[in-house]
Amino acid sequence: MPSIPELPAAHVVVDWGTTSFRAVLLSADGAIRDRIETGDGIQFVDKDAFEATLLRLLEPWLAAEGALDIVLVGMVTSRNGWIEVPYVPCPCTPGDLAGGAVRRRLVNGSCAILLPGINDPARKPFPDVMRGEETQIVGFGLEKDATIVLPGTHSKWARIAGGRISGFRTFVTGELYALLVQHSFIARAAGAATEGGSSTAFERGISEGATDTIDGEAMMSLIFSARTGMLAGELAAADIRDYVSGLLIAQEFRQARACGFFGQGDRIGIVGNDGLNRRYADVARHFGLEVVAGSEHAAIDGARAILAAGKGTRHDAA
Amino acid sequence: MPSIPELPAAHVVVDWGTTSFRAVLLSADGAIRDRIETGDGIQFVDKDAFEATLLRLLEPWLAAEGALDIVLVGMVTSRNGWIEVPYVPCPCTPGDLAGGAVRRRLVNGSCAILLPGINDPARKPFPDVMRGEETQIVGFGLEKDATIVLPGTHSKWARIAGGRISGFRTFVTGELYALLVQHSFIARAAGAATEGGSSTAFERGISEGATDTIDGEAMMSLIFSARTGMLAGELAAADIRDYVSGLLIAQEFRQARACGFFGQGDRIGIVGNDGLNRRYADVARHFGLEVVAGSEHAAIDGARAILAAGKGTRHDAA
Repeated sequence: MPSIPELPAAHVVVDWGTTSFRAVLLSADGAIRDRIETGDGIQFVDKDAFEATLLRLLEPWLAAEGALDIVLVGMVTSRNGWIEVPYVPCPCTPGDLAGGAVRRRLVNGSCAILLPGINDPARKPFPDVMRGEETQIVGFGLEKDATIVLPGTHSKWARIAGGRISGFRTFVTGELYALLVQHSFIARAAGAATEGGSSTAFERGISEGATDTIDGEAMMSLIFSARTGMLAGELAAADIRDYVSGLLIAQEFRQARACGFFGQGDRIGIVGNDGLNRRYADVARHFGLEVVAGSEHAAIDGARAILAAGKGTRHDAA
Repeated sequence: MPSIPELPAAHVVVDWGTTSFRAVLLSADGAIRDRIETGDGIQFVDKDAFEATLLRLLEPWLAAEGALDIVLVGMVTSRNGWIEVPYVPCPCTPGDLAGGAVRRRLVNGSCAILLPGINDPARKPFPDVMRGEETQIVGFGLEKDATIVLPGTHSKWARIAGGRISGFRTFVTGELYALLVQHSFIARAAGAATEGGSSTAFERGISEGATDTIDGEAMMSLIFSARTGMLAGELAAADIRDYVSGLLIAQEFRQARACGFFGQGDRIGIVGNDGLNRRYADVARHFGLEVVAGSEHAAIDGARAILAAGKGTRHDAA
């Protein structure tokens, strides 16, 4: 975790995504005083209704505290959100992120601070992008050079070097898993069986997905092993989802290794709290990595660190 | 095409799959005299109703010709079909396939001949399987050593060596494409735009999917380029499906090459007639391959060649 100077007063951090609104009220030293979580994702908010929605949702805190600094991260800063905040290019520091933030004075005197996402112009064929995860990476801490993975629908692998986020790459592992187990021949084979029931099948999936033979080079062939394993009587319907989960996460690690994100014996940070972290840690250990678990408050820590890094810089929008 | 001795009399070849029933009436020399195609796929037929359904659907021919040899291929020979015909293991010849067929005398005196699928016990982690494509491969011809690809939902790559099908591997390319363009972030980005509109986007997808840089090793990262390309203004909504099609087929070729199926300058057979062949031929040429197009009658030619190879072998079921 980064060392964050104390901020001047109580403040709010809001992770406002496509399907949910999650806010925390923090004291100057970063202690969580209260939480508000609702289903008011940005997809349900009209383009010109963001300020009113924000003030309505935070009304209890604003009534008690008066005007507050409100840091906003996530898709609320995207084209489909309130104000599109341009990406800050890698490599970048927390100060660069603060410098890319957009501030807006609200009708009640509060200041909304919309943090930017980042892109990686070095990525081929097109610059890669993230919006929200960079705040978690800052919250993990940039002091030591490291590789960090943030598991999810679209997993992010990032390199930290010289106190900066030096580059990153997105893998669509979680989405591919959901497509396969919900809509494909794998969904039909698995039937009503849910994942999480078979750690043996998960381990087997890891082992096959991580293989150093040529089979590991042929991901679209490996996926078919979910069917051939059943036909061979080696996988039961109840095993399939866990097997495919291990297979795909192991393939993600294998592909990330090919891209230079780690070598045998390296340390790796795993950040996030969506239930995938334990699975990613299992796979990381299979690849001979030492796992450093990030705090579940990485997003809050990161937002505070960026806020602290940006003190003194001000450029108001609108 | 294999050279097939003339068979003794008119006969029928039926490709009976999960969703359709397709039969041809052939003269002794293989000329197509008539066709019957219906939607009576095996999923709509009760386990004990296959014989009656077959006789009903072929009634016009049976009434005119009397008893006929009726060769059946496809999922009708699977566990979910009429009679489960065990897989014949690779390497195998047309004679081996004939030897693995199951014959059944029908109430009208006709003989149903159910051809086996094949498996490849050398494949890891589990033996790979096909049921129907092996007949097309035989129809393509086993005279010259070659690699053959059969594009589809589950593409098959097969090696022909020494007059036998020596081994094969399945890639789930078509299914992955359908999942991505129907249900994923790619579906939402593409909107109502259909594929086939942009050969430029298809070519660009091929180029990115085939790249010899490390990006080509990271398929789950490459897939995300469908989004980053739009964010970068390099791909339009109308381009996305063609771009992803090129990307995935090129990745299939790259993975098949890693598995040893071809090298620069090789010849490759492309068999099938589901509309993907032109796309696969484009990708094959991008990889420096010389394309040999299979006949659209490969399944019929193969069924006849297997029938001819099996003359004299008889083992009746039930």
